[in-house]
Amino acid sequence: MRATLLHGAGDIRVSTVPDPTLRDPTDALVRVTHSCICGSDLWPYKSAPEAAEGRRIGHEFLGVVEAVGSEVAKIAPGDRVIAPFMYSDGTCTHCRNGWPTSCIAGGFWGGDDKFGRLVDGGQGEYVRAPLADGTLVRVPQETGPELAPALLALSDVMGTGHHAAVMARVRPGATVAVVGDGAVGLCGVLAAHRLGAARIIALSPHDDRWRLAEQFGATDRVEVRDSAEAAAQVRDLTAGIGVDSALECVGSRQALETAIAVARPGGAIGYVGAPQDLVELRASVPLRAMFERNLTLSGGLAPARAYLPDLLPDVLAGSLDPGPVFDLTLPLASAADGYRAMAERTAVKVLLTP
Amino acid sequence: MRATLLHGAGDIRVSTVPDPTLRDPTDALVRVTHSCICGSDLWPYKSAPEAAEGRRIGHEFLGVVEAVGSEVAKIAPGDRVIAPFMYSDGTCTHCRNGWPTSCIAGGFWGGDDKFGRLVDGGQGEYVRAPLADGTLVRVPQETGPELAPALLALSDVMGTGHHAAVMARVRPGATVAVVGDGAVGLCGVLAAHRLGAARIIALSPHDDRWRLAEQFGATDRVEVRDSAEAAAQVRDLTAGIGVDSALECVGSRQALETAIAVARPGGAIGYVGAPQDLVELRASVPLRAMFERNLTLSGGLAPARAYLPDLLPDVLAGSLDPGPVFDLTLPLASAADGYRAMAERTAVKVLLTP
Repeated sequence: MRATLLHGAGDIRVSTVPDPTLRDPTDALVRVTHSCICGSDLWPYKSAPEAAEGRRIGHEFLGVVEAVGSEVAKIAPGDRVIAPFMYSDGTCTHCRNGWPTSCIAGGFWGGDDKFGRLVDGGQGEYVRAPLADGTLVRVPQETGPELAPALLALSDVMGTGHHAAVMARVRPGATVAVVGDGAVGLCGVLAAHRLGAARIIALSPHDDRWRLAEQFGATDRVEVRDSAEAAAQVRDLTAGIGVDSALECVGSRQALETAIAVARPGGAIGYVGAPQDLVELRASVPLRAMFERNLTLSGGLAPARAYLPDLLPDVLAGSLDPGPVFDLTLPLASAADGYRAMAERTAVKVLLTP
Repeated sequence: MRATLLHGAGDIRVSTVPDPTLRDPTDALVRVTHSCICGSDLWPYKSAPEAAEGRRIGHEFLGVVEAVGSEVAKIAPGDRVIAPFMYSDGTCTHCRNGWPTSCIAGGFWGGDDKFGRLVDGGQGEYVRAPLADGTLVRVPQETGPELAPALLALSDVMGTGHHAAVMARVRPGATVAVVGDGAVGLCGVLAAHRLGAARIIALSPHDDRWRLAEQFGATDRVEVRDSAEAAAQVRDLTAGIGVDSALECVGSRQALETAIAVARPGGAIGYVGAPQDLVELRASVPLRAMFERNLTLSGGLAPARAYLPDLLPDVLAGSLDPGPVFDLTLPLASAADGYRAMAERTAVKVLLTP
């Protein structure tokens, strides 16, 4: 089959790789109908060392189940499914606690499993999905194709934006700031709106993204790029009080500091931007200011699988539509163009079709 | 009147200072019946530069109102009152949000107010209490003297231990770890027990403090001092899962790291130990581990005033008794002995009587 392989910085190729087959009795074999490129795929895309063999990549996909292992009970051939951005068994203590991202048996697409065996990436024609009962979520057969972008967003960015809002404790009537106007930030706006925020201040320097933020429910825009000035503008917009909930949707030190700076005393910061520079970030948590203002810093890898039962019905009902974050659709064969477009910020998020 | 003055490291004196009088129409004049020494008083006690004039100190007291300013409506002469460890107006946005520690007009006892004017410390015969309506909480006249230690604990340590438990999201049935067996840690145990924790693991190296922890509801003890080994023991006690809630009640980098290390994925750390070494602490927040495990780090200056309406009825009803944290009672004139006893750890917490 064909799948993307990352051979080094800026070097994505679509190549022939071995066809996946059922390996474990808990596996499902999925024919991918829609996949996409994530902001987090851009880091290895920008920095990976040269590798002749190439490395599988991609972790968001929709598909149709082709075959299942003997121990798979909840998923059957012919089912249409969403795959969240990590696989998980759904039965361990952490999964039962609502944290499939910490599943004892789970892991990431495109990497090695706990036994050192390859797990397919999501950008390919087929995927062997481990722990299928815990991982995959069925979509009704009758769902129309127009919902595919919204459903695909549930595999990662919408779950991640929702996670930022949940961890930042967005409540009905809340005043919210969203730092970052990429796909996750935009989904954070949408999630805050869905959770009833009265005021959503988007820190959105890009005109095109601000238009989408506004469509998703943002009420106020802070346009400046300078983070200290942006924080000052948020404080001005809130009469010096600060926001109840700050969503950090970038993963940079600057974004985290901005989110912390704009939260009111007793407020919460939900951070979901995968830390780009962990050493720098580690040094950037201003614990003194957090202590004095009783801030809550909360976040991490979004448990997208755990949110699917909550978010999927809204997408199916048409009341939640993160689909517009996809502003470019390309065939899998042109994945390299998609990476380039996202790296150059000419696209927010790229959807890949077979 | 007589009050404690800190003249430098290890140099506490009880000296004659000007009698306080009503200054602002929102003031009350309080005759102190009980005050005490806080773990946080020990830092300036251990490190203050020499000062001929001396600096007022102390921020926990019970007393009887002697006089009130013309704008005081809720407190009257003769009232018995508890003073929380900061004063606050009770009316600003932050106070209404439940965060009197961030009150726009409020501040600390023993320091300067927003206008640079002295605010009395709590260790003295009298205190001018600013913003009396917002700050002071009345205790029923008929309350017996045996409740005084428990009531005094509500001014700071019990509110702070409760804050750690609240910020760490202790829920009925929860598994909890409490890092630190000082007065705040012990109150954290008591608070977790009151909130319904099923299992409370006290990291308590001191035998005498462990006995009190057990009396307060601790179910398991980790005795070792080494923080890595203590964290490993907590993980062993929880079958490798970690605790739902970790209470950091010390304020050191080591204690914070231990609390973070023992929290389960999706767990919360409530930190209330006033940071002793902020620079070090700033560098100590392991954001990568927190991101991967979806930890919530939450805490700060306890809003003791905001908790009083919740905690006071339980103390009056006899169902909550943090009084035993006071294990030494001295007259104000012997305050220096009290500081020494706490600094040398021969006393957990010292109560001062006039």
